[in-house]
Amino acid sequence: MINASILGATGYTGIELIRILKNHKKVNIQSIFSKSYAGKPISEVYSGFNNNIDLICEDLTDIDYEKLCMKSDIVFLALPHGISLNFVSKIYEQKPEVKIIDLSADFRYDSYRLYSKWYEQEHPSKELLKKAVYGLPELFRTEISSSRVVANPGCYPTASILACAPLLAEKVIKPQKIIIDAKSGVSGAGRTPSKATHFSHVHNNFKAYKVTTHRHSSEITEKLSSVAEKEATVTFTPHLVPMQRGIQVTIYADPAVDLPARTEDKIDFLHDIYRDFYLEEPFIKIYDKNKLPETKDVYGTNNCGLTVRYDPPTDKIIIIGVIDNLCRGASGQAVQNMNILFDFEETTGLEQEFIF
Amino acid sequence: MINASILGATGYTGIELIRILKNHKKVNIQSIFSKSYAGKPISEVYSGFNNNIDLICEDLTDIDYEKLCMKSDIVFLALPHGISLNFVSKIYEQKPEVKIIDLSADFRYDSYRLYSKWYEQEHPSKELLKKAVYGLPELFRTEISSSRVVANPGCYPTASILACAPLLAEKVIKPQKIIIDAKSGVSGAGRTPSKATHFSHVHNNFKAYKVTTHRHSSEITEKLSSVAEKEATVTFTPHLVPMQRGIQVTIYADPAVDLPARTEDKIDFLHDIYRDFYLEEPFIKIYDKNKLPETKDVYGTNNCGLTVRYDPPTDKIIIIGVIDNLCRGASGQAVQNMNILFDFEETTGLEQEFIF
Amino acid sequence: MINASILGATGYTGIELIRILKNHKKVNIQSIFSKSYAGKPISEVYSGFNNNIDLICEDLTDIDYEKLCMKSDIVFLALPHGISLNFVSKIYEQKPEVKIIDLSADFRYDSYRLYSKWYEQEHPSKELLKKAVYGLPELFRTEISSSRVVANPGCYPTASILACAPLLAEKVIKPQKIIIDAKSGVSGAGRTPSKATHFSHVHNNFKAYKVTTHRHSSEITEKLSSVAEKEATVTFTPHLVPMQRGIQVTIYADPAVDLPARTEDKIDFLHDIYRDFYLEEPFIKIYDKNKLPETKDVYGTNNCGLTVRYDPPTDKIIIIGVIDNLCRGASGQAVQNMNILFDFEETTGLEQEFIF
Amino acid sequence: MINASILGATGYTGIELIRILKNHKKVNIQSIFSKSYAGKPISEVYSGFNNNIDLICEDLTDIDYEKLCMKSDIVFLALPHGISLNFVSKIYEQKPEVKIIDLSADFRYDSYRLYSKWYEQEHPSKELLKKAVYGLPELFRTEISSSRVVANPGCYPTASILACAPLLAEKVIKPQKIIIDAKSGVSGAGRTPSKATHFSHVHNNFKAYKVTTHRHSSEITEKLSSVAEKEATVTFTPHLVPMQRGIQVTIYADPAVDLPARTEDKIDFLHDIYRDFYLEEPFIKIYDKNKLPETKDVYGTNNCGLTVRYDPPTDKIIIIGVIDNLCRGASGQAVQNMNILFDFEETTGLEQEFIF
Repeated sequence: MINASILGATGYTGIELIRILKNHKKVNIQSIFSKSYAGKPISEVYSGFNNNIDLICEDLTDIDYEKLCMKSDIVFLALPHGISLNFVSKIYEQKPEVKIIDLSADFRYDSYRLYSKWYEQEHPSKELLKKAVYGLPELFRTEISSSRVVANPGCYPTASILACAPLLAEKVIKPQKIIIDAKSGVSGAGRTPSKATHFSHVHNNFKAYKVTTHRHSSEITEKLSSVAEKEATVTFTPHLVPMQRGIQVTIYADPAVDLPARTEDKIDFLHDIYRDFYLEEPFIKIYDKNKLPETKDVYGTNNCGLTVRYDPPTDKIIIIGVIDNLCRGASGQAVQNMNILFDFEETTGLEQEFIF
Repeated sequence: MINASILGATGYTGIELIRILKNHKKVNIQSIFSKSYAGKPISEVYSGFNNNIDLICEDLTDIDYEKLCMKSDIVFLALPHGISLNFVSKIYEQKPEVKIIDLSADFRYDSYRLYSKWYEQEHPSKELLKKAVYGLPELFRTEISSSRVVANPGCYPTASILACAPLLAEKVIKPQKIIIDAKSGVSGAGRTPSKATHFSHVHNNFKAYKVTTHRHSSEITEKLSSVAEKEATVTFTPHLVPMQRGIQVTIYADPAVDLPARTEDKIDFLHDIYRDFYLEEPFIKIYDKNKLPETKDVYGTNNCGLTVRYDPPTDKIIIIGVIDNLCRGASGQAVQNMNILFDFEETTGLEQEFIF
Repeated sequence: MINASILGATGYTGIELIRILKNHKKVNIQSIFSKSYAGKPISEVYSGFNNNIDLICEDLTDIDYEKLCMKSDIVFLALPHGISLNFVSKIYEQKPEVKIIDLSADFRYDSYRLYSKWYEQEHPSKELLKKAVYGLPELFRTEISSSRVVANPGCYPTASILACAPLLAEKVIKPQKIIIDAKSGVSGAGRTPSKATHFSHVHNNFKAYKVTTHRHSSEITEKLSSVAEKEATVTFTPHLVPMQRGIQVTIYADPAVDLPARTEDKIDFLHDIYRDFYLEEPFIKIYDKNKLPETKDVYGTNNCGLTVRYDPPTDKIIIIGVIDNLCRGASGQAVQNMNILFDFEETTGLEQEFIF
Repeated sequence: MINASILGATGYTGIELIRILKNHKKVNIQSIFSKSYAGKPISEVYSGFNNNIDLICEDLTDIDYEKLCMKSDIVFLALPHGISLNFVSKIYEQKPEVKIIDLSADFRYDSYRLYSKWYEQEHPSKELLKKAVYGLPELFRTEISSSRVVANPGCYPTASILACAPLLAEKVIKPQKIIIDAKSGVSGAGRTPSKATHFSHVHNNFKAYKVTTHRHSSEITEKLSSVAEKEATVTFTPHLVPMQRGIQVTIYADPAVDLPARTEDKIDFLHDIYRDFYLEEPFIKIYDKNKLPETKDVYGTNNCGLTVRYDPPTDKIIIIGVIDNLCRGASGQAVQNMNILFDFEETTGLEQEFIF
């Protein structure tokens, strides 16, 4: 059993961590921290958490780092970017043995310039940024296993990179002019009320937002370039779906190689690449060529559903992927990373079936 | 480890059983049966079930009962009423040691007359009907533990009876003229497409249905009479909510005793009765008098949230309850009953936190 | 053609007024006022309003009342209670000929004591309160037609009173212990974002709220007492439905007279009362005894759908009603009142069919 | 006043026609026809239609064409493709003066080969196919005005073609490799219940469907080729959104000309083309470059909201469009076509504001 603490426990990714870790047989939730709900039991913030042992929120603005690090083998940070990095630094300096998984964007980039540009602030811990590993297990498992600080990927990047990686790594598609048309449930916008997430505004409504300007486009581009070993260019268009959880991406790319002549053979060829690339991966589900992944298939799970098609008139390869934005796109993947860090079976605590 | 089989595995209560049992550490799902999907893997029916070991649907219309009973310690039946009873009889006769949990209405009544009247068919197994135990664990745990056939309660009755039982048992409310205004998510209507469950009809819509004529009113009335040890009369009005899962009941009853003078004291007095009555019950959550249960609090769980209020102008006691209709209202409760039958810790396999 | 102005034009009842009045052939929208959006075109606040003539929001905090009253034959106030009454007084004093329809609660009560108690502030214009008429046309048409200030009813009271009035007026039900179990779409909570109306919280969720404490219970009680000519007592329980528009009420009452012997005859007898009572009413739709009104039936309309049932076991009469909370429950009814005030055909501008 | 009849009045496009035409001041709905509901009043099929004059469904399978054509100035056909064409032929032959608007796909193509290929049946009325005009008013107004048979465009094609036309007509984008990522509300799937439109399946779910195989891709390609005066190639990917009404398209295209140097100037340049192209069009709403159209903006209207962006990394032009699939995507556009045919003001009966 290891002890885990959560900073920022009352946001949606915070409570998703609690949901998962409470049933993780090798983890004890040691302490949880919140700014707005310091001193309150989590069951007062979310009545659904009225089970068994209750957890009391400690004060995020008044952390005793020595105590925190003495009691915790791992600390999860589910805090806003720009804020998270200060907490990460302090924990890092406090005690080398404590593992850190940061769910914010603060340590995701290789390039601090990219971070400064897209998050509009200097990065104060460039050294630490270099040491942090991008926590996408299927691509960076080895690096993660020996790291101390894991930067948990963004939700859109998780779906987008998992979807593109096989064909980019195998040089089957061009890394330029990749189009990612992405759709997300509303929980991705977090817990703070706003006009944009007001029920009467979102319900029965569909819209694109932050067209050409969403931060995740830079995270996706950097990582796809790394996978492709060549500079990638990406158009990323996010859309808001009137549903709770789920991200779906439809990706359009140009072939970089000669594909088999017949369309059916092309599709088989492409599927084989996905099957081979993710052969041993327990969370990646490659769909038969006559099935299409839906977000509900992965509701509440750490799975990623993928499939690929080919469209003759435009010679485009179409990749379709789905994840649960709060689980695989955030807290589930964080637990998967934790499992790697502590050499647990990678699926531990993440065995739950999808909920219909 | 025990072996469980499921008859009618592809309906919503069937897949909810699979969802729960797959993570139950003392159960192996031995075999699943379906009429429409015989021969197909469950992952072909629901793509979300593409995890780990796949299950193949065997043919429900061609069961080898000897084999079924040899391989199964328990059989769950998630079949339509009127059909289920034939299967129950055959399993029952095949092998005495096999436990049976029937999720249909076929064995819920004490009175076969009531069954005939409301389900418009004679009951062919009156003997068995007598032996079957009504599987509401908080009220009938002892009887369940020594039974062979458990009749799993209906979804509305589960919420309604759990909500009324404490005050009826303690003779605090009159058993007559109880009004149960109930609201359910659409999954309660099952998996078969119909006009009434067509997305474009249900979405952004709210309605009452089967006013004064819903079958569950008779089940509720029989069981409340039993709890009250006196004939109960109930008006039961179901409503359809444009959501997936969840039942909420708002119940209005008349006091049968003198309550404390001040309204606040009345409410405290009533809450104390609930707390005492369900003191050791792991799945019953009594809400503070300043909190109201919401269906989302119990999403995906076997919990029942309850609270009680008093309204001075009309001298009415108001009870509010919530459950997840597919979990606590069907398959979760079935697993709870199984845990009792096999003397497992009653919460085993049902520890999952609510999913937000 | 008359000229209308709207104070508080950017809230949900404000834009519903604009939606209706823009197609009202006898009305010109003269000016609209807003606090938050002063100086901005309405099309900037709601992109959907990019049709034809655009309207610019004038500053609500800096009204030139002389100008307003010179240019307007009628002023609609879609402002919060407690604030609205100040504006009403000023307009009233400015020019006697200007008609006022106040959509807030400030002038709905006959009793200023009731107002003070439930809205927790003294009423500063008791004289005006006496002069204001409660704008429920089917019950108070004559009074409305000769009034200067119409207090537009609350959304829940509109549905509740229209549903109870025939049986109360005819002394067929007892005015005591009436139970109103009401359900509303989320737009009833207005346009200001909050935790309670955050999409991820409300969606796929159902809950009761303000049980025994909702202000509308007092409005309903006062008006039902007036209809019954006897003090009524009411238990009113509101619930939040994850949908946009629509209120549904299920009402339980006790017979005050001997009803015909057979249940079918009872139901016919009750329906006849509704048909007679609302015989000439264009907006009241009595449903056949084999049909139940749904909120979608009245989506976007000023209609009220009603039906009635009888439940033998408890001797309860069940009344079911539906309205669109923004249209009939607010702005549509306001326009109906305006039509009465100006002696227009009462359905003018309200002829739109329901939108599926 | 003209007389209109509707064949197939009880499907979603049928009742949308009724909704619109009932408030059209120059149209009398003469007769409506249905296969499943022959003899029943429309108010029995949809309780919401209980207003004013009720309409009785006549028998679609037993039409007296002489009578129909004598009494009707125009006939709308809201029938399935493959079936509609038989009715069109009979009406056409019966009486030359009767105008026909067919909402099915049967007369949309210029090429009967394309029709046969995608709808898997020979076209029995090639002569009539030639005479029919594609009813997209903004592009083919002149042809429509002098035609007898108007083929009302598909919902996806309406949005897609209106979005692409300005840049294609001006040769600003290449007609090849246009990517149309389209999303639709569930009403687009019609009124017949199915697994794919079952509430519990669709709600809280998002998915792509018919990837590379949707019939509308061929309709879009043919019409875009015509606009571009050059063969277009299109990848069209439809998705299902858990909402009632609304289509949103996000379109990616490559510039065919040198655009201004600065990104801002590019976007202005592109917007100007849209503004000029649709200058006098009452239903086309070009959004400012800092606003994005949402489906709710056009709910219940005949409007099409459009905007355009440019993404430097990939040199892609992004076009975003929204319509209401039942109104502009079907019945609203049919009424717009009718207005043209009868030389009414084109907006008559379509003036309703969006409903929030």
